[in-house]
Amino acid sequence: MANQTQAELQELVDFAHTLADASGDAIRPFFRVPIGVANKAGAGDFDPVTAADEAGEHAIAAAVTARYPAHGFVGEEHGSRQADAKLRWVVDPIDGTRAFIMGSPMWGTLIGLLEDGAPILGLMDQPFTRERFWSGPDGAYMRTASTGPSPIKTRACASLSDAVLSTTHPDLFGSDGETEAFGRLKSQARMTRYGGDCYAYCLLAAGFVDLIVESNLKTYDIVALIPIIEKAGGRVTTWEGKPATEGGRIVASGDPRIHEKALAVLAG
Amino acid sequence: MANQTQAELQELVDFAHTLADASGDAIRPFFRVPIGVANKAGAGDFDPVTAADEAGEHAIAAAVTARYPAHGFVGEEHGSRQADAKLRWVVDPIDGTRAFIMGSPMWGTLIGLLEDGAPILGLMDQPFTRERFWSGPDGAYMRTASTGPSPIKTRACASLSDAVLSTTHPDLFGSDGETEAFGRLKSQARMTRYGGDCYAYCLLAAGFVDLIVESNLKTYDIVALIPIIEKAGGRVTTWEGKPATEGGRIVASGDPRIHEKALAVLAG
Repeated sequence: MANQTQAELQELVDFAHTLADASGDAIRPFFRVPIGVANKAGAGDFDPVTAADEAGEHAIAAAVTARYPAHGFVGEEHGSRQADAKLRWVVDPIDGTRAFIMGSPMWGTLIGLLEDGAPILGLMDQPFTRERFWSGPDGAYMRTASTGPSPIKTRACASLSDAVLSTTHPDLFGSDGETEAFGRLKSQARMTRYGGDCYAYCLLAAGFVDLIVESNLKTYDIVALIPIIEKAGGRVTTWEGKPATEGGRIVASGDPRIHEKALAVLAG
Repeated sequence: MANQTQAELQELVDFAHTLADASGDAIRPFFRVPIGVANKAGAGDFDPVTAADEAGEHAIAAAVTARYPAHGFVGEEHGSRQADAKLRWVVDPIDGTRAFIMGSPMWGTLIGLLEDGAPILGLMDQPFTRERFWSGPDGAYMRTASTGPSPIKTRACASLSDAVLSTTHPDLFGSDGETEAFGRLKSQARMTRYGGDCYAYCLLAAGFVDLIVESNLKTYDIVALIPIIEKAGGRVTTWEGKPATEGGRIVASGDPRIHEKALAVLAG
C-alpha cells in the first residue's frame, strides 16, 4: 500500500469482486459435468477442468484489460503480460484442480494484486458454495450463500500441540527431506487434515485452522491468499521465513507465535 | 426390500427427508462457531462439534419416536434402542468430525434404515451447502442449493489405472498390513485424494469418484451410504467382499468391474 490511498485500494477491491462475479459465472457451468474417465487424455476430448480454467481466466483477463489496460496480468493458463507494470493482477482460475475433478467444493478462484511486487489485495471465490473471502483496506472478510460480508480473524494458538495443521496432499512434498520435515511437524500438531488447497488458507484466515505447510506452490497459488491471511492477523512466509510472493515452500499460520516454532521444526 | 412395498418405502424416504430437515436445522447453528483452541479439552468448555452431534441426533431420534415408536434406533451418540425391531434407523449426525472442526463442508448427516439387518434406504445431508443425496425405491438422487432432485449414477471405469481413488485419511489404516495394502492400490490408481468422509461416497454415487477404500468404520458410518451407492449402480463390501453393513474395512466402487480388482490388490 505504499502508493495506493485507502479509497483507491477500496476501488480495486470492488473491482476484484466484479472479476470474481464474472469468473464464477464462467466456471460454474463446468463444475460436476459428467465425463467418462476414459475421456481424460484423448486428443479433442472434452476436459471440464481445463475448459473451466480457460473460461475463468479469459473472463478475468478481459475485464482487467477493459478497465485497467495499463495493469499487468499473471495467469495460470496464459502466462504473464506487462510484467513491468506497477500494478499486476495474479490469477488462478481454479486452485484445487483435483478437488474440482472429484466434484468436491474444496477449490476456488484466486485473484490477487501486486504493487511493485508486493501483494496489496486478495480474493478467493468459491462459485459453487457461493462463499467468498477477501482483504479490504482495513481487514479481511468473508461472505457465504446465506450471510453478508463479515470480518474474519485468525484465532489464538500459542502452541504447536494445540494446532490444527493442514496440507493439500502429503505426496506434494518432494526431495530435500521435505516429507520428513512435514512429518516432524505433523507429529507435534493436534490434528492434521489433507485436501485443502486455497480453501484451507481461507479457513485459517477465518480462525478454524492454525497452520498450513505446503511445497511447490506457484506464485498464483499464494499471492491472493497473503493479504487475506495477513489482514486477518496471520502470517505467510517461505519455510525460510522469507516473503512468500513467489511461491515455493510455504508456511501460513494464524497465530504468529507458532510461526517461528513451525519454521524451526521444518528446519530440523 | 423384502417386505416393504414401493409405496411404503417411498413413505419412509419422505420421512427421512423430514429427519434431515430437522437435523440440519439443529446442527447448522454450531458450524463455524469460533472457539479458542485451548477450550478443546477442559471440563465444562463448549465444544461445537459435540453439541452439534447431540442436537442433530436428538432431533432425529425424537422424530422417529414420535412417528414410528416401534422402530429401532442406532445412533453414534446414544447407542442402540429396540435392537430387535424389524426396521431400525441408523444415524450419524456428523460424519466427518475433523472436517466440521476445521470449518470445511466435507461432512454430512447420515440417516439409514435397516430392515431385518439389511439397508433399504439411505440419505446424506450437508446442511451448510444445502446438498442432499439419497436413495429412493427406483434409484439414487441428489439436490443442491440451486438445483432440484435429479437422478445420479456412478460412472464407467473399467481399469484401476483410470480410477480416482479417495480415502478420508491415510493414518486411519491400522495394523495387519492395511497401510501397505492401500499403498498398493494407490500406486495403481490414476489419482488419490484424501479428506472425503461421507461426502466422497456421495461423489462416487454421482459419478465423480471411482473407488473409496477405508478402514475402522462403524456401522453408522456406512449403512446410509450403501443404498445410495447401490441404487446409483455401484457396489460396497468389506475388503473380503462381504456385506458392509457392520462397517470395518470398506471398499466402494462406482463400476463393479474394478471392485473385484481392488479386492484382489488389497488382499495382496
